[in-house]
Amino acid sequence: MSHKELARYLPILKWGRRYDRGALTGDLIAAVIVTIMLIPQSLAYALLAGLPPEAGLYASIAPIILYTIFGTSRALAVGPVAVVSLMTAAALGEVAAQGTMGYAVAALTLAALSGAILLALGIFRLGFLANFLSHPVIAGFITASGILIAGSQLKHVLGIGAEGHTLIELSLSLATHLGDVHWITLAIGGSVIAFLVWVRHGLKPVLRRLGAGAGLADVLTKAGPVVAVALSTAAVWQFDLAARGVSIVGDVPQSLPPLTVPSLSPAVIGPLLVPALLISVIGFVESISVAQTLAAKKRQRIDPDQELIGLGAANMAAAFTGGFPVTGGFSRSVVNFDAGAETPAAGAFTAMGLAIAALALTPLIYFLPTATLAATIIVAVLSLVDFKVLRRSWNYSRADCMAVATTILMTLALGVEVGVSSGVVLSVLLYLYTTSRPHVAEVGLVPGTQHFRNIERHDVLTDPRLLSLRVDESLYFANARFLEDYVHDRVAKSPSIEHVVLMCSAVNEIDLSALDSLEAINTRLSERDVTLHLSEVKGPVMDRLKRADFLEKLTGQVFMSQYDAVMALAPTPSRPVRLATQSR
Amino acid sequence: MSHKELARYLPILKWGRRYDRGALTGDLIAAVIVTIMLIPQSLAYALLAGLPPEAGLYASIAPIILYTIFGTSRALAVGPVAVVSLMTAAALGEVAAQGTMGYAVAALTLAALSGAILLALGIFRLGFLANFLSHPVIAGFITASGILIAGSQLKHVLGIGAEGHTLIELSLSLATHLGDVHWITLAIGGSVIAFLVWVRHGLKPVLRRLGAGAGLADVLTKAGPVVAVALSTAAVWQFDLAARGVSIVGDVPQSLPPLTVPSLSPAVIGPLLVPALLISVIGFVESISVAQTLAAKKRQRIDPDQELIGLGAANMAAAFTGGFPVTGGFSRSVVNFDAGAETPAAGAFTAMGLAIAALALTPLIYFLPTATLAATIIVAVLSLVDFKVLRRSWNYSRADCMAVATTILMTLALGVEVGVSSGVVLSVLLYLYTTSRPHVAEVGLVPGTQHFRNIERHDVLTDPRLLSLRVDESLYFANARFLEDYVHDRVAKSPSIEHVVLMCSAVNEIDLSALDSLEAINTRLSERDVTLHLSEVKGPVMDRLKRADFLEKLTGQVFMSQYDAVMALAPTPSRPVRLATQSR
Repeated sequence: MSHKELARYLPILKWGRRYDRGALTGDLIAAVIVTIMLIPQSLAYALLAGLPPEAGLYASIAPIILYTIFGTSRALAVGPVAVVSLMTAAALGEVAAQGTMGYAVAALTLAALSGAILLALGIFRLGFLANFLSHPVIAGFITASGILIAGSQLKHVLGIGAEGHTLIELSLSLATHLGDVHWITLAIGGSVIAFLVWVRHGLKPVLRRLGAGAGLADVLTKAGPVVAVALSTAAVWQFDLAARGVSIVGDVPQSLPPLTVPSLSPAVIGPLLVPALLISVIGFVESISVAQTLAAKKRQRIDPDQELIGLGAANMAAAFTGGFPVTGGFSRSVVNFDAGAETPAAGAFTAMGLAIAALALTPLIYFLPTATLAATIIVAVLSLVDFKVLRRSWNYSRADCMAVATTILMTLALGVEVGVSSGVVLSVLLYLYTTSRPHVAEVGLVPGTQHFRNIERHDVLTDPRLLSLRVDESLYFANARFLEDYVHDRVAKSPSIEHVVLMCSAVNEIDLSALDSLEAINTRLSERDVTLHLSEVKGPVMDRLKRADFLEKLTGQVFMSQYDAVMALAPTPSRPVRLATQSR
Repeated sequence: MSHKELARYLPILKWGRRYDRGALTGDLIAAVIVTIMLIPQSLAYALLAGLPPEAGLYASIAPIILYTIFGTSRALAVGPVAVVSLMTAAALGEVAAQGTMGYAVAALTLAALSGAILLALGIFRLGFLANFLSHPVIAGFITASGILIAGSQLKHVLGIGAEGHTLIELSLSLATHLGDVHWITLAIGGSVIAFLVWVRHGLKPVLRRLGAGAGLADVLTKAGPVVAVALSTAAVWQFDLAARGVSIVGDVPQSLPPLTVPSLSPAVIGPLLVPALLISVIGFVESISVAQTLAAKKRQRIDPDQELIGLGAANMAAAFTGGFPVTGGFSRSVVNFDAGAETPAAGAFTAMGLAIAALALTPLIYFLPTATLAATIIVAVLSLVDFKVLRRSWNYSRADCMAVATTILMTLALGVEVGVSSGVVLSVLLYLYTTSRPHVAEVGLVPGTQHFRNIERHDVLTDPRLLSLRVDESLYFANARFLEDYVHDRVAKSPSIEHVVLMCSAVNEIDLSALDSLEAINTRLSERDVTLHLSEVKGPVMDRLKRADFLEKLTGQVFMSQYDAVMALAPTPSRPVRLATQSR
């Protein structure tokens, strides 16, 4: 394997050779900022996933380093993210109870499965599968997940117990426990939420007025959660609020990520397979969207299949170092990019910063109230909630809107897995439905050109002896019979027709079922003494028709262009007497 | 509701008014011939479905009458057919043991479910769903079913016990019992097979030489099974072979179809729901194919949605009169048609004939050996087995060939339900895969015309400043990112490009995901100072683009035709210096 080939699979070889002091400075600064931001975020997402806080730190260390070696994005920061953590909690809830050893081991298994799936997709270059998650489905899913995540964290802010993976379960559970609200906890959580919302919306203008640049102001506002953590921890410690019932993080082991081994027992793997697949695909889509957005800004390229390998390796690392499923996160990557990260080495330095935190700083967060972590999650995810896509898709296309609405409703009502699956299945079904009833336009010549257009929409020339039909869809099994009926009905209406020309400019494929239908159309037309012609058949389609015996059976000819067809068959077209024909 | 509207839902009102003596004569003659043919066929298919022989007769009486009232085909003969009977046996085997009361009641439930599904599909006009069964999948399924049916009947010809719904189960089961072959039974079964094969292939030339017309010869050869039944019954009776271990039909009640009630208990309905759906769809496809073939010969029309109602009513009738799932059969309908049936009344007369048989003739078949019935099934279904479709699809399209091969293998290996489902799912997946990686052609002007063609295949004119891409697929979520990458890579290769024109003649839809991609392409090109244009955008697509704000953001224009675009942007195209670009 040449160095160049090797560098394709190990992108570190490419950027590592050109690494210089300028890149080092940029990377180090970015790493410090991201580390500060990641400490509370990692703890919070571990909470969201139902795992002990240190799992969040561990999931941010080894995975980042592995991604640094195998990933292609220069700015992507890999670690726990909100949606994947929620999906992790939903999946693990099926196999073990939160807080048990089995739960933590299942989290490792889930990360390992997810890593294996991502690696397999990357090695077999199946990254295109992620394209079947349409933008509306993703948008709907993110919005609904944001609501579920915020809902799932409310219990920590209210200081009550509540369970559930759907909005209904959550609401019912919260409602039954509402009498037990712990007011001190609520005071802390509420203050943190208020503070963070102010940081997001009110602080930036203040900073700008004080003379900070836009970039600096952005980065400083990201430090809001750290301030909230520090202040609320201090308050709990000062006023001994833990003794008065405020739930705190407590003992966190002072340790580098441990070496762990995921369980490979079928009883654990079985129920986690489908969730792992969904987590992989959703995580990949989130990650690749962020990576491509950031790469485009610097005219860099992302290789989706290599990204799968990078994320797969990162998840494998999480599985063996006490973590849980990870992916490239939006907010951390944007901060990394804005803070000036030049290469993936920034990620490696971040990992070192977090390792130091895991070793040295954990005693400091003993008194950190879980309400604070929950509050940072709530504020972060509510910015994901965006119902505008409903309106946009409603205006543009009813099918897209149905897909969004279904994804949102199903996610809220039946959970993340059912939600995203039903969105994907529905959008595929809607696409198939559309293609199964294709638009067929009767076309005529635009005067003064060689161009043909729909007679219903344009003022064009036709000839009553010649029916020109433009079929606006590939011909395949689902619409083959439709075309048969359409041609039959149309010809039956106009006895003057002597020739039918199917203009195939939009026919990108003719499968065997459609070939049978074309033969049937040819036969039925010939029984009426009408000849069938084709025009503008594309190269790949024509190649295939030549391999069957259809062209010998065809009563008419295949014309290079529709104009050639009209010139040969009815050279003096005129303005038509309009017929009531089907159009959309 | 006017008479005309009513006649749409009750086609009998249409043909009933014009009924005359000529039609009556034709119908009566056809009915006599079909009745004679149906008696052994009905008994045999009941055997195949694992039901007592009279169930086959009952399933041919009331259902025919209901179809006569609601169906639109003039020649379709409704009753038990081979493939549906096999599927019935497979489905019922899951809920009850053959020969038990529960088994017969489950058959009624299956017919009722099937009837309800067909009625629902018809009322909601969902007949198009059947189009998702592609021709290759149907061909593969019929062939594999033929083999399974013949295999399942071998035990009756060999006089041994054997069970199984897949080829492997059947083979193993037959192999273990092979030592128990009952030689007298085998002699009867073997003779009947030999006789029937001779009737099919050797008798017709003899009859023609004796001066019979082609039609008469055809009809007489269909009487072969009746002769086989009569001769073998006589032999068993004469030589008292039943006492020597030859299995016979035995007592069949002398009765009109009884009034029966299908079980509606969830324990029975649950496992039968999916099989009922598959039986409905397969039965509908078989029936509508036959009906359309026969209708086309007389230039009559079949209304697929009304056919669903006709078949649904027929299955409901089967459920309440001791039958099992039915549909329009190929061989019986062809015989009906060839024998001169003019209207659905022929079916009603056939029903009367069978009712008389059920009342009066059942004692005559007491000594009928089951080996004879099995032999008639084997000979009938082996004519369905046809592997030529494998070769035809291999030559024409690998995707179609994969669908056929998968359907055949899965049906043989895992049974009819898995087989047909996997064929449908695979053909849909292959279609989606194809559309997710669309063919994109770089096009140039065909000299002397206004027509544009692929520069790889035709000698055309281009301009280095202008890149004209014809996207050969609708733009939707599955291929949106593909186009983004394609345009980006292509433009990066040729710095001379100033304009990109996407020729949209084959773009039949642009969904919201693709719109996002077009916006991304537009933005990325504008960062390179390349303008993006569209040409030949179709009416329905343009309508939608106008509802979004894409056209305001577009850096270039939308041209009526590709020729207009070239004339406006690069009016002096020349022969190109070829670039190595992607093509297929």
